[in-house]
This record gives sequence, C-alpha cells and structure tokens, in this order.
Amino acid sequence: MHRIGFIGLGLMGQPMSRRLLDAGHSLTVWNRTADKAKGLLAAGAAWGASALAVAQASDIVFTMVTDSAASEEVICGRGGVLEGSRPGLILVDMSSIAPEISRSIAARAQAKGVSMLDAPVTGAPRLAAEGKLGIMVGGPRETFAACRPLFERLGAKIVYAGGSGMGTTLKLVNNLILGVAIEAAAEALVLATKAGLDPQAVIEITSVGGARTGAMETRGPRMVRRDFTPHFSASNMYKDLSTALRLAEECGVSLPAASISREILRAAKSQGKGDQDSCVVMTVLEAMANTIVKLRD
Amino acid sequence: MHRIGFIGLGLMGQPMSRRLLDAGHSLTVWNRTADKAKGLLAAGAAWGASALAVAQASDIVFTMVTDSAASEEVICGRGGVLEGSRPGLILVDMSSIAPEISRSIAARAQAKGVSMLDAPVTGAPRLAAEGKLGIMVGGPRETFAACRPLFERLGAKIVYAGGSGMGTTLKLVNNLILGVAIEAAAEALVLATKAGLDPQAVIEITSVGGARTGAMETRGPRMVRRDFTPHFSASNMYKDLSTALRLAEECGVSLPAASISREILRAAKSQGKGDQDSCVVMTVLEAMANTIVKLRD
Amino acid sequence: MHRIGFIGLGLMGQPMSRRLLDAGHSLTVWNRTADKAKGLLAAGAAWGASALAVAQASDIVFTMVTDSAASEEVICGRGGVLEGSRPGLILVDMSSIAPEISRSIAARAQAKGVSMLDAPVTGAPRLAAEGKLGIMVGGPRETFAACRPLFERLGAKIVYAGGSGMGTTLKLVNNLILGVAIEAAAEALVLATKAGLDPQAVIEITSVGGARTGAMETRGPRMVRRDFTPHFSASNMYKDLSTALRLAEECGVSLPAASISREILRAAKSQGKGDQDSCVVMTVLEAMANTIVKLRD
Amino acid sequence: MHRIGFIGLGLMGQPMSRRLLDAGHSLTVWNRTADKAKGLLAAGAAWGASALAVAQASDIVFTMVTDSAASEEVICGRGGVLEGSRPGLILVDMSSIAPEISRSIAARAQAKGVSMLDAPVTGAPRLAAEGKLGIMVGGPRETFAACRPLFERLGAKIVYAGGSGMGTTLKLVNNLILGVAIEAAAEALVLATKAGLDPQAVIEITSVGGARTGAMETRGPRMVRRDFTPHFSASNMYKDLSTALRLAEECGVSLPAASISREILRAAKSQGKGDQDSCVVMTVLEAMANTIVKLRD
Repeated sequence: MHRIGFIGLGLMGQPMSRRLLDAGHSLTVWNRTADKAKGLLAAGAAWGASALAVAQASDIVFTMVTDSAASEEVICGRGGVLEGSRPGLILVDMSSIAPEISRSIAARAQAKGVSMLDAPVTGAPRLAAEGKLGIMVGGPRETFAACRPLFERLGAKIVYAGGSGMGTTLKLVNNLILGVAIEAAAEALVLATKAGLDPQAVIEITSVGGARTGAMETRGPRMVRRDFTPHFSASNMYKDLSTALRLAEECGVSLPAASISREILRAAKSQGKGDQDSCVVMTVLEAMANTIVKLRD
Repeated sequence: MHRIGFIGLGLMGQPMSRRLLDAGHSLTVWNRTADKAKGLLAAGAAWGASALAVAQASDIVFTMVTDSAASEEVICGRGGVLEGSRPGLILVDMSSIAPEISRSIAARAQAKGVSMLDAPVTGAPRLAAEGKLGIMVGGPRETFAACRPLFERLGAKIVYAGGSGMGTTLKLVNNLILGVAIEAAAEALVLATKAGLDPQAVIEITSVGGARTGAMETRGPRMVRRDFTPHFSASNMYKDLSTALRLAEECGVSLPAASISREILRAAKSQGKGDQDSCVVMTVLEAMANTIVKLRD
Repeated sequence: MHRIGFIGLGLMGQPMSRRLLDAGHSLTVWNRTADKAKGLLAAGAAWGASALAVAQASDIVFTMVTDSAASEEVICGRGGVLEGSRPGLILVDMSSIAPEISRSIAARAQAKGVSMLDAPVTGAPRLAAEGKLGIMVGGPRETFAACRPLFERLGAKIVYAGGSGMGTTLKLVNNLILGVAIEAAAEALVLATKAGLDPQAVIEITSVGGARTGAMETRGPRMVRRDFTPHFSASNMYKDLSTALRLAEECGVSLPAASISREILRAAKSQGKGDQDSCVVMTVLEAMANTIVKLRD
Repeated sequence: MHRIGFIGLGLMGQPMSRRLLDAGHSLTVWNRTADKAKGLLAAGAAWGASALAVAQASDIVFTMVTDSAASEEVICGRGGVLEGSRPGLILVDMSSIAPEISRSIAARAQAKGVSMLDAPVTGAPRLAAEGKLGIMVGGPRETFAACRPLFERLGAKIVYAGGSGMGTTLKLVNNLILGVAIEAAAEALVLATKAGLDPQAVIEITSVGGARTGAMETRGPRMVRRDFTPHFSASNMYKDLSTALRLAEECGVSLPAASISREILRAAKSQGKGDQDSCVVMTVLEAMANTIVKLRD
C-alpha cells in the first residue's frame, strides 16, 4: 500500500481519489476550496494544509486540475508540490494541459529528483467512479510501470504513449477526433432535418454500424432536445482543437477537416456560446441553413 | 409464412435471404450469375428463371443489388419485377441508391398496384448472417408494418424513416457521418505519427470514451497495417458523399466538414485509389504531410 | 459587312448589338419583350418576328440570353434559330451556360449544317458599351477566325479556348476565381473590422500591390456601405461555383478553397439572400463572427 | 531636409533609402553586411558604425529588416537604435512583423521618448525604386503627419491604419487576401488543365473583368512555366497566414477560405518547398489531382 496524495477534487478528482482510498491506500488530499474534501475526509482521507504539505506526506502525488496554468501553479508555484518534494517522489499530473507545458513542468520536477508522468484521461465522472476511464501516459517507462497498478484501479484502458508530454499529446489527438465527430453529428442532424427526416432516426440508425460515434451517442439526444448544458464546453473543445492544430503546424501535418471544424467552433464562441457544450456548434450550422433541428411530435 | 422472392445474391444478399429461408418462409431466388444461388437451392430455395418469374411466384419481393442502375433494371426493365407483378405485391428494395431514383421506381411500382419500400442497410456480411443489420425504411407506413417481422429477422435496429425515398435519404446521412469520421481517423493517425506517437496508441485510447468511432474501430487497425482491401470502396464513399452534398444543395444546408472530406476523397480517386477501401484517404494526407503512418516495432 | 442577327436584348445584349450596328453591319433583332428593341430600331435595326425569322434574315446570329434553358429554347425550340437556319449559317451563343448544354446545342446545330461558337463574356454593361468585354470562345477554329473581327468590335480581350464547350468551360474557371476572391475580400473585411481597422483602409491598400483583386476593387466599396444591389447575384455565383465543382468532379480535381467558398454562398442563399449581390456572403461571415462591418466616421 | 538614418539595405532597403537620398536628405546607413551599402555611399550617404551610431546621427531612423526577431534586435538589442536614441527621435519600422511585437517595441521606444511608427509595405523592389509602394502606417497620428512627406517619396498609396501595431495588422489582412488569391489561381489552373483548357487562356481572360487578381497577373505566368523562384516564399506566406489566423482567433472571426488555404500551404512546406515561391501550392493541388499544369505547344 502507498502513501498517496491527491490534489484537485473537482468532478473528476473526487471519484478518482475515492477509488484509490477504497483500495486501501492512505490518502492525503488538498483542494483550493476545502469543502469538496468533506466526503473523502469522512471516508478516512487526511487533509493536507497545502500542495506542499500533501507532497511531504506522500510517496506518489496525483494532480487533477483545470488547465495548464492551474497545473503549473499547484506544482511549481509557492506552496506547491515541488516545494514539499524530496528526491524519489513520484508526481502524476492527470490534468489535460498543453504538451509543452507538461514537458516544462516535468523538467523542473526532474531537477528536484521528482519523476513525473503526464496522464490525462478520457471519460465522464460516472466512468471515473466505476474505474473505467481511459488513461494516456507519458513519461519515464519505469515510473509508468511503478504506477500501473494505481492506473488500473482508475481506468479500464491504460495506454503508454511515450516519453514526457506524450500522454497530453495523445489526449490532443483524441480530442481532435472528438471535435470533428461532433461537427459531423451536427452536420448530419441539420441535413436530416431539412431533408424531412426525424433527427431521432439519425440517432437511432447510427447507434449501430460503421457510422456509430461516441459523439452522436452521447450528444445526439441532447442536441435534438437543445440541451447544451456543458459536459465539455465549446471553449474547451476550441482550445484543444487549437492546440492540436498548433501541434500540426509544428509537425507539418495538414488537417483539413479539423481545421474547418475549428472555424465553426470559433463561430460558436464568437456568438457567446463558449460556455455551452461543444455540441452547440449545431446552432451555428442551423443559422447558416436557416433552420432549427427538432424532434417530430 | 410468406412466399418470398429474393433478387441479388451478392455478399449481402446471400446471408440475408438465407435467414428468411431458415425462418420457414418459402423462398424463390434469382441472380444474374446463377452460381451464387447454389447454397440456397441446396437448403430448399427455388430458382426463378428471371426477376419476372420471381415476382410471379412471390407475395413479397426483396431486391439487393449494386446501384441505382441495377436496381432500376431489375425492377423496371424487361423481364423485371414489375413485368411479373400483380396488384398487391410488396416490393422491398434494400439496395443503397439515390433517393430520387428510389422515388421514381416506387411511383412506377405504384402505378401497377405494387407497394414499394426503400430499405437500405448498414452492416457487414457477418452482421447480415447474424441478423444484426441496421435497416432504414421509407415508404407507406402500413407496408412497413406488414414487413416489420421480416425486417426483424434481418436486423437488430429497424428505423422507419418516412415516406418513399426516406430510407435511402437516411442512408446518405448515415454515410455522411461515416465519411467524415474516416477522414477524422486518418487525420488523427497522420498527426500522431508525425508527433512521435505510436498510431496504435490512438486506436487503443479511442476504443473507449467520447472519441470512439466505428470508423477508427473498424478501419484503424487496417490503416496502420496499410491494408486497403475494400470493405466500402473510396469510389463508393465518394459517390455517397457526393449524393449527400447534392441533397444538401437542394435542401440548402452548408456542410463544411463533409464538403472538405469529399475533396480529399476525390484526390484518392484521382490518384487511382478508388477501388481501395475508403480509408485510403489516409495516403492523401500522408503525401501532404510527407510521412508514412506505421506501427512501432 | 455582314447580315447579323441578334437575339436577347437585355442589359448586355443591347449595347453589344448596338456596337455591331454602329460598325455598319445590317442588324435584325428579336427579344421576348419587344420593348427593349426600341432604341435599336430607331438606330436602324430591323425587327425579326421570331428567332426563326432572325435566322432567315442573317448570315451570323448572336444569342445572349439568361441561362441554359433559355439558350436551348431560343436556339432549338419551336420557332427557334435552327428552324430558320440553312447550311452555312454561323451561330454565336454568348450566353453563360453549362458546357455540356453548350456542346449538346452545338451538335444539334451541326446536324443542320450550322457552325456554332460558345462565346460567353466577362464585364459589365458599361464595358459592353465601350467594346471592352472579355470574350472566351469555344468551337471550330475556322468559325472563330471568321467571327474574330466581330468579337474585336465587342471586346478588348478575345481568347480562343478550344473546341465546342470550351468557351463556357473557361467562363466557369474564371468565375471560380471570382467566387473565391469575393469570399477572400469578405473574410478580410470582417477580420479587419474586429481587429480594429477601418475597413476602408483594406480597400485602399489592396488597390495596389499583389493583393489587389477585381473583387475588392468592385465590391469592397459596396460591401462597406452594405449595398448588396445585385450586379452578379449570390444565386448565380452559387450556380456557377456548383457547375465548376461538378466539372471538378468529372475531371478529378480537388478544389478546397472553391469548395468551402461555395458552402458559405449556400448559407447566403439559405438565408434568403440569393437575389442580392454575391458579396452578400460577407453577412454570413459577420453573423459567424457576431459583428458588423462598417466604415469609421 | 532631414537627417535620415536607414538600417537594413536588402532588396527593398536599398532602393528605398536611395530615393530618400536623391530627394536631398542627408542619409546615414547601416547594414549587417557592409557590402550592400557601396552604391549608397558612392552616391553620398554616410556609413554609421552601428544601428546605435545611425540613431545618434539622425532625426528620423528607418528600419527595414527580415522579421520580428531582426527588428527587435536592431532596435532594442545591444548597439541598437534605442541605445543611440534621444528623446524626440522618430523611428519608422517598415519591416513586416507581428503586431504584438511591433507594439512591444513601440512601448520600449516610447519609454525612451522615441515615437515609433510601424509602416510595412507592399510591392516589389522595382516599385520601391519607382516610389510606388503601398505603405500601411500605425502609430501616433502626429508622428505620421510629420513623416508623411517621406512616405510620399517612397509610395504611391499611403494608408494610415490607426495606433501602434495597426500598420502591421493591416499588412496581415492584405496578405490574407493574397494567400487566398494564390490558392484560387492555383485551383483554377489545375482545373483548367484537367478540363482540357490551355492554362494560358485562364491567365489571359482573367487579365480583364471582375476575376482579375494580382496573384494571377504576377504569378500565373510563372506557375505555367513552373518557375517557383521565390518572390515571396511559401514559408513566409505560411507564416503570415498563420499570424493572420492567430489574430482571427483573438478577435473571434471565422475564416474558412483562409484557413483551408493555409492547410494547403502547410503541405507545400512539409513537402520541402517552403523556400520556393508561395505559388508552389499549385504543385500540392497537382499531386492531389494527379496531373501537371503545362502550356500547350
């Protein structure tokens, strides 16, 4: 059993850390707003006064925060993980951040003898609770090997992607597909509507066969109900597609469909819909087609 | 039990007609090349001398042929179904053809008292054999109701799409999603390769989570092995995307991602790869990026 | 001097036929609405009772009508040019129509011993009056040679494009460039506005240097004044881009920028702006960017 | 008459500084490689030992260097303009650089009492020699007013674009149009070729009418001769389109045609053609269409 630290107790961090606790590890947690820790403390976790304190109390520290900036601060900032670290500590950053930031943090960690993995995930809170996430891991192979049993407690699909920054790189590629698939679903529903089909028929038929996509399965029903409550916001999807396209610039890869999908997402943002779910791109296409997707009675 | 006719015994028609026979219906079949009927005849089916003869011997005739032209010929041509029909016959065309051709055939059928459904399918031959196809049906609702038990013998997902031509319209929308999803998979694999990832890692991580697609699941493994044996050829995918975009023209719907995906597919065709599987679009993107997708050792 | 017939006295046909008359040729005209011929008759032209009658009275007949259908009717229909033709007549169709229609008409003309040129033009009515049109000619080279002096009376730039249908093909390629250049101008003006520039500055700087385009020069001032009075309507531009893309399909050429420009034009049409000038595509981009292009005070 | 300094004597800087000298101003010049100054010194210019020395000897200093980095170094670096400046000096950076770098340099200049204009140009060396450049100016309006007579010596079209950084912003918008127009010209030539037209016919007809573009006029003849000698390289055009799209990201503007044009340009770069002229994008489209554009004999 390990002494585990967990920093970042949001919608994902809570069920993930809970699964580690329930597996019998000792757990010290910290979150910017202490409130979120209540359930974990009641279940036996300890409270660390800061990210620094969590690091001091742990052999392996997980971080699961919002973005590149938050990750950098909680790890490299004042009172952060690296200030409380000692050589030999393992750091696993499961946040979805830009690969170059991830590499930069890993280098600073290494300078203090801390081995870091970048290990972003796919999957909703429910899958986190069930230990069925997808986990993409970058960093030293031996650190990955050491952490593997913990990853298996959290995810159903663990993929080692390569050296430092490759976990977050794989996440970008994953989200590129997601972004284009959402655009495709939106185009299909708008076309179906104007062609006189019930959009529900599209959702149903694409639940089987080669045209099935997670995008339609998850978001199709919400799109036809016009429920744009954010699961993954248009702004965040836009940010990820932009980072993927910047990677494509560096690598020299032309991505016509991803590129044009980003232009539509940008329109959603410009129209003030950035905080809604990424499937709100449908409304951009609706306006272009002068129609509204809706279910038949 | 019905007297069923089945015309068109290709890779799909054989297992489909076999399932109807095995359910206890009497079955009369015809195919341009008689050879393909051997197994069915051995299992108890009768041979019709022509499409006309099949129609005379049946209450419900299924047709499952290559394209709009073949469908038109076998139904409306000399010696075709309508020459052998009588009022009350039901005709179910399961071929994937253009909606306006389907509507035109249905009108000619109706003039002879024959009620026709357009009922194209999704799914590979293996799924046909297991009765797990997706079936999209257009035509008179009461004819659909009458045929429903037969459809349920053939498919796991039966969707009534509306009046005549709406089954084939839904098929176009389905394939629009498929075409864009294949483009997305290809873009992802090329980017992954140049970004230093093992493309296999992309296939694995997208087997779970929101970014999963039938396109990657089915074609990803073949793409990284460079196996472009046609399951659904680039030319056929191109034809379907083109028909979908023509529908979008008529309806007035802008489809940026589908539109650009078609331009890439067209390049594959122009480069002489039209007979290969539609996932051969990956090679167009590879040439643009000056790279080759391959698995790590 | 020739006996010339001229059919179609619209905004272009009037000044064009007038220039031929003023050069000393005898001129017989016909137009669906006779009114339009007043000025020409006053200036010495004769009135033909029909297209047929015009053909009987002439050695060379020009047609300048709206579209493929009108061209086909006035030439091949009842009372049309071919009914009044005799072997040796020359027919010059200056209408902008689809190449395959043009070829089909030429074949029917040839069957009656009539040699036809397809010779669409570029340029506004004012340029027609000044004899400064661009003229693209397809058809037999010797017929072109025979008509060249007449073309030089009408245009400043005469281009022989090849056999029958190649004049109209060249017109499509010309309009493909125009369509994309208008899209580029619109994108530039919207970006400039949101970037805090006066759009007038864009118009001015692009009046010199490599970035100059007829699209911006002609339409930029109208775009910033929001004057969408049709010079070349969005619907007609859409039709031409669509025909060009259909040609690209047949030839096997991928046209990413033309293709995406057409999707934006289609949105303009879907939004009910098809009758406005093609530069109304700017309003589609404005809506996507949630802004309005306007001049600074 | 002013005491003018000129730093950067490349293909553009030489004719530009010469015109200022010839107008009777005293001129002090500096260039990284002294060689390039020979002609100017022979004509009466003085040599400054460094950018610093040029600044000390001048009332108005012009800089015309390669890119953002070179501009920053020659102005803000050791031995640069600002080290030799005194309050009241005017600095005119005519280099084409990123707006945010321009603004940052201007702020550092202002801190030393130096008023800076960003004033990039359009036009080839020949136009520079004739004083017919286009000049886009950003910065304090009164500094612009003071420099206007000098700009009029250099350019035929002087556009005041707004505050600091707006000159370079306008240059980006200008080049966005150029980039899309080159893509359009390339698409047109490839389509024309496969449609059986002589590409020369496209060049000729688009020299008149609404479809005329500087891109085709300047580059068309080179494209059909396959002369890709760089006038403005694919890499530089790619860089400018990328900066323009980054501006579009910040502003929230969707640019479908510019976006897709950049993907094609990126392919040219990936294929090792970055140092060739930007019209080399034609070869990317040729490969996609499996053809070669060439003149008829």
